This record gives sequence, structure tokens and C-alpha cells, in this order.
Amino acid sequence: MSTITNVTTYDLRFPTSNTLSGSDAMNKDPDYSSAYVVISTSADDGLEGVGFVFTIGRGNDVVVAAIDSLSHALIGLNVENLLDDMKAAWNLFVHDSQLRWLGPEKGVEHMAIGAVLSALWDLKAKRAGMPLWRLLAHMEPEELVSTLDFRYLTDALTPDEAVEMLRRGKAGMADREANLLAVGYPGYSTAAGWLGYSDEKMVAIAKEETEVKGFKQIKLKVGQNLSDDLRRLALARETIGTDVRLAVDANQVWDVPQAIDWINHFHDFDLAWVEEPTCPDDVLGHAAIQKAIDPIPVATGEQMQNRVMFKQYLQAGAFKVMQIDATRVAGPQEIVLEYLLANKFGVRVCPHAGGIGLCEAVCNYAMFDYLAVSGTTDGRMIEYVDNQHEYFVHPTRIVNGYYQAPTAPGTGVDMTLDTAKRYLYQG
Amino acid sequence: MSTITNVTTYDLRFPTSNTLSGSDAMNKDPDYSSAYVVISTSADDGLEGVGFVFTIGRGNDVVVAAIDSLSHALIGLNVENLLDDMKAAWNLFVHDSQLRWLGPEKGVEHMAIGAVLSALWDLKAKRAGMPLWRLLAHMEPEELVSTLDFRYLTDALTPDEAVEMLRRGKAGMADREANLLAVGYPGYSTAAGWLGYSDEKMVAIAKEETEVKGFKQIKLKVGQNLSDDLRRLALARETIGTDVRLAVDANQVWDVPQAIDWINHFHDFDLAWVEEPTCPDDVLGHAAIQKAIDPIPVATGEQMQNRVMFKQYLQAGAFKVMQIDATRVAGPQEIVLEYLLANKFGVRVCPHAGGIGLCEAVCNYAMFDYLAVSGTTDGRMIEYVDNQHEYFVHPTRIVNGYYQAPTAPGTGVDMTLDTAKRYLYQG
Repeated sequence: MSTITNVTTYDLRFPTSNTLSGSDAMNKDPDYSSAYVVISTSADDGLEGVGFVFTIGRGNDVVVAAIDSLSHALIGLNVENLLDDMKAAWNLFVHDSQLRWLGPEKGVEHMAIGAVLSALWDLKAKRAGMPLWRLLAHMEPEELVSTLDFRYLTDALTPDEAVEMLRRGKAGMADREANLLAVGYPGYSTAAGWLGYSDEKMVAIAKEETEVKGFKQIKLKVGQNLSDDLRRLALARETIGTDVRLAVDANQVWDVPQAIDWINHFHDFDLAWVEEPTCPDDVLGHAAIQKAIDPIPVATGEQMQNRVMFKQYLQAGAFKVMQIDATRVAGPQEIVLEYLLANKFGVRVCPHAGGIGLCEAVCNYAMFDYLAVSGTTDGRMIEYVDNQHEYFVHPTRIVNGYYQAPTAPGTGVDMTLDTAKRYLYQG
Repeated sequence: MSTITNVTTYDLRFPTSNTLSGSDAMNKDPDYSSAYVVISTSADDGLEGVGFVFTIGRGNDVVVAAIDSLSHALIGLNVENLLDDMKAAWNLFVHDSQLRWLGPEKGVEHMAIGAVLSALWDLKAKRAGMPLWRLLAHMEPEELVSTLDFRYLTDALTPDEAVEMLRRGKAGMADREANLLAVGYPGYSTAAGWLGYSDEKMVAIAKEETEVKGFKQIKLKVGQNLSDDLRRLALARETIGTDVRLAVDANQVWDVPQAIDWINHFHDFDLAWVEEPTCPDDVLGHAAIQKAIDPIPVATGEQMQNRVMFKQYLQAGAFKVMQIDATRVAGPQEIVLEYLLANKFGVRVCPHAGGIGLCEAVCNYAMFDYLAVSGTTDGRMIEYVDNQHEYFVHPTRIVNGYYQAPTAPGTGVDMTLDTAKRYLYQG
């Protein structure tokens, strides 16, 4: 028997605005940041659970404060009971009757709860000696589903359907796992696309990412100026040829009528998708855009607040590509629900990554999906940016444009001690 | 010329869980709380701008931390410039490119921004020597509209339409203002309805609220147990007769299919509305419920995160009664937008109140709407609970079930110094 002895938080900030890496039409000068939490126990194994919320600078302290305020509920809890009943852990925070007023289930408080629940899953996976993707994929369907909260989802997906789906996913899993370990999971590159980059820099990076690094899709930021967009898209398409896919990302800069107008200038570029055309809260707006710009697919999700929003996008046919984020929702349990919903509606998931720690975290869910849910990587890939992986004990490895499956136990987001020391924010 | 010299926050908590006042199917033991902010300036007038976020206990400290983290951006600013260009003040916080990652425009960060913007409007109204409702109603349409942010709304409402609407609202305003000052604005009472109350207590309070205090509508909490609900509704209807309206509130306890099932047992009670049948994020779910339970109106909005959600509810016909809250969105500018949207779609607004400070705050917006937007109180009323008004310098006054128009300059939410001292939370 062991108990939780410490919950330690770190406000880590990395001065990325110096280089305009990460700049887009909405996020002009992000300083990639991490509200990082470490849960320690009285067990002899010395294992710690690690979680984080990715932010882009100001306000990272508020997320840290939110995580800190949850720590009172954790200290002293029996670790084995907690990890054996993750649904109870979920209820403890997500359904706290006073805390839910601050959302419900959205924004700072929900992200903070996600970091804590992720840290508990990290500890659970470390104790099981497995990377998270493998732990999730090998859980019995009933056991995994018993950890999930179907509140507000039963008009779209029931627990019985979820169990059935995961049972079907067991067929051929061993072959897929062998393939995953041998080849990996497809990635795509956003490295060339930041708006702060010159045309020359964009072209040079696009060449490097596709010809040298082997990515089969790149993505450009758009939405600040239409003629700039058209010039950059033509240049990019010329650079990568027709065999590599080209996606664009507007980062929510348009209103609905403007999005439709603007995107309808893009039909000649054979786009893989248009990402975040407008406000992520606007289910009906995205549905109208998707209808009006067909056959270009709408993609969104990195700033979607919770599973109820994803449910509605799927019900309304408001996107064709679903982009989950690893640290915006309430941890692994909510992300698994998102994948199950996507599979029910036959929509492919291409997770958001690039921000510090997101590549390390999110590949676990895509790999779980490949093994246990959709059973395929067709049309699916994980975003990748080759930045800031050196801060992690087990950094993401890419070979020929494929994410290599992590093998270290846990969720893969342990930072090195040196990183925590160097980038601790001093106010 | 004056500058902002201090931004002081207070974590105030009131032990309401002792009495189960405020208890419902979702919020079992709220401790009504206030994340309260006071903005001081170098001006000789000694006027301070006051704002707050209402919460129900745990997490109030996180909202306070979020407000504190915004104070750096305020200290030293020129007050006159700021108050003369409230759109710039809005942009400073709502469109901060790093902070918006924490929402965007939802949850703790958005509520904190709302408190700060409300405090600035409070100062603006105090300097103008007018209560907020009067300041807003007497602004020139172009001037008021110039403070508003139509981003993500133009598929439903344009600035030109808003100006035109407010111009039409000028007709007959003097008569309506005279009537408002003489009679007030209709209220309704939730006092009888808390789930923690016995049948006897509920009946006694329902009698008192309608026969003695003169309210023409009461509201009961429902959703924990169907047979309890049916018994309480029959009792309440018997107590108040058929001339007083009866509404119910489920506080988000149901999934969509369950809501439809449950509410369809309520057709015999001639209900004024069913409030919060499910998750406030679920536009499509509410639209399905509204369709299935017709003619009973769906009401919701107290936990709606921002104007984009209200826009969609209106576009989808997902409710017939819109319930704004005074401290969940980004202050007066966003609330005015919500009223303009409601008027465009012909939906009536019945604001959420009852929580500490909400009655004092929200009546300003309803009264502004009566004077300048919808021009009517037909079917409209403001929630009222006779609790905790003694903490305010200018407490809400009810006469014959009508909210009396506040006459003191400002937004009406200054607490007494004694209150701030007595209820300061010590962690």
C-alpha cells in the first residue's frame, strides 16, 4: 500500500517568440510553455506520475495555480485504489460539484484536471511497465470502458457499443503491433509553414521535410493575406510536387462567410484539408463551411474543449478530419472517448502536435487507435515539428516520416531535470 | 489625466452549504463565493471600479489568480483613454494572442477577463454619474456598437444591423424609462425550489413568494427522482393556482434521450419552461430536446461560455428562453451582444440570478434591453432569490415582485467593507 505524498508543479516557459517558430494568423508570438506536474508516492519503486498542459505563454501561471489547487484532493490518497479505479479518479475532479461551475468541463480548470489525470495514467503505465499506447490497447474492452464517462454522449455512443467496438479491435492486433514496432505511425510536417517565415525559408524547409526527412504531407499557415496565401501555396505545391499532400491552417482567423469566400480560392491546390477556419465553438458554422467548400475537407479540434463538442461535430458532419489535442481535455479517458466517437462516425483522426511535449504525448493515442479501435492508418497521421524534443528523457523519434513507437513505460512526457531548472519561470 | 494605480482582488466565500440553499440536482452543496476585484486610480474623485465572478466554492482561488495575472497589463494605463475606448480594453484582454490559448473565450480565463472589463465599465458609469443600465441605454447607437466585437457573429448579426436596431430602440424610450422608474422590471422567485427542502418548506415558501411578495412565477429544481418531481410539481401547482407561472430547472443532469423521456412526463403542469435539461455545450442536443418536448419551452444559458454559443442556439432554434449570466462572459460588451442577438432572432431573455451579486448586476442588462433593444417586458423576467443582498452597498430592492431600477452610479455590485473583511477566505 502506498499513498500520494507530493504534487509538485513547475511553470516552464521557452522563449520561442525569438524565432517566430509557431507564428500563425492568430498566434503572432507564442512562447511555448508547460504547466508541468509531478505526482510522487510513498512506494519504494521511486516511480512518479508526470503530466502537463501545453500553453503559449502568458497565463501558464493560472494553469499552474489550477493544478496546485487540485493537489489538496490528492495528497494522502491510496495509490493502488486510485489507479485501479480511474473512473473514481475522474469523478473526483471532473464531477466535483463546486469545481464544475468553473467550466463546466472547459478552459483552464478542465486542462488542469487533464494534467492531473494524465499524471495518474503515467504512473499506472509506469507501474505496468508499458508505454501508454500499449497499456490502453491491451486492456480488456470491459475494463477500459469501465473507466470512461458516457455522460452527455449516449445519444451518439453507448458503453455497450464501445465494448463491442473494442472487441472487434482485438482481431489482428498482434500483426498491427508488430508493424507499428517495425515501421511506426505516419507523421506530417508543419515546420515549413509558419507565417513569420520568408518564401525562401518556407521553400527550403518544405524541400528538406519531404525530400530528406520523408514526410508525405506538409502544412502551411494561411489567413492573413489572400494574395500571400496564393503565392505561398503555388510555391509550396511546385516545391513538393503532386505526390506529397498539402494542407493549410487558418488558426480561427475568419468569420463563417469570410471563410467560405477565402477557402473557395484554394480549389486549384488539391488541399488535404483546411484547418481551423473559424471559432472552434461554432459547430453550425463549421458545418456550413464544410458544405460550402466541398470537396476540400475541414479539419479542426486542437482547441475543442471537450467530448460534447466532438460529438456534435461528428453528428453535424461539420468536419472530415478530427484533430485531438493531448492536453486540452481531461486526460487519457476523454481522449479515448474521442477516438471511439470518431470511429463510430467513420471520421479519421489526425492529432494536433508540435507544441512542446505534444508529439511525445499524442502519439500514444494514435497508436492505441491503430491497434485497438480503427485498426488502420489510412489517411491518418500525426502532426510533427522538429523542435524542443531535446528537453525530454525519451524524445520522439522520426524515421522516414514515421513516428517510432515509444517503448519506455509511461506516457512519454518526462522532462529532463536540467530542462526544468533552466526554463523555470521567475515571474 | 489619471492612471490605474492598484488592482486588488478578494477571495470571498460564504458558507451557504450549511443551509442547502442553492442545492439542486447537480450542485449539491454550493458555498456561494465571489472572486472580487477593485480597480483604483490616481484621480482625485476617489472612485473605484468594482467587478466580480460568482462561483460556488472550490476553485474561487483559481479565478482570483487569473484576475491577479491580468493586473500587470492594467497598472499604469491612462484611465481616460481606456474608458473612452472600451473596444481597445476588450482587445487588450480577449484578443491577447497568448491568453486566448487558455480558452479561447471560455472558462476561468474568460470569467476573469469579464470581471476586469465589468470593473472598468463600473468606473465609467460612476464617472458618468449613472447606473449602468442608463449609461448603456443613453449611449448613441454608433458609440455603443463601436465598443462591440462582432468577430464570429457576422453570419447572424452585423454591426450595421445592430446600429439600426438600437436606433429603432430610441423610439418611446423616455416613456419606458419613466415606467421602469415607477414600477420596475418583473422578477420571478427560485426561493421555494431547492432540492434540499422538504415538501412542507417548499409549499410554505411558494405561498410566501407569490401571495405575500407578489411574484408571478416560481421555479422548482427537478431531475433527481421522477416521482419526487411529479409529487412536488403537483403540490406546487396546487399551492400557486393557475395564474402564477411554474418553471422547472434540471441543472444539466440528463443526457439527451433521458431529458426527452423525463420532461414528457411534465406536460400536465403547464410549465413556463424547463431549464438546463442537459450539457450547455450541446447545441444539437438542446435543439433535439426542444423539438421533442414542444410546446414546453427549453431555457438555458447561465453556463453558456460566450456569444458564439448563444448565436448557435438562436440559429438552431435550440431554446425559447435565453438566460444570460452576468459574470460568465466577458463583461457588459459581450452581454449587450447577447441581447442584440436575441432580439434579432425574436427570443426573450430571462437572466440568471440568485447567486451572490448576480441580482444586483444582471438587472442592469434587462433594464437596458427594455429601454433600448426589445422595448418590452412581455414574457421577460429576472430570477430572484432573497439571499445575501445585505452584503451590498446598494442591495437589490423588490416591490410587488418587481426589481426596482438601481439609481446609484455604477454597476451596483460594490460590497460593504465589513463583508469583505468577514468573508475573506483564509485557505
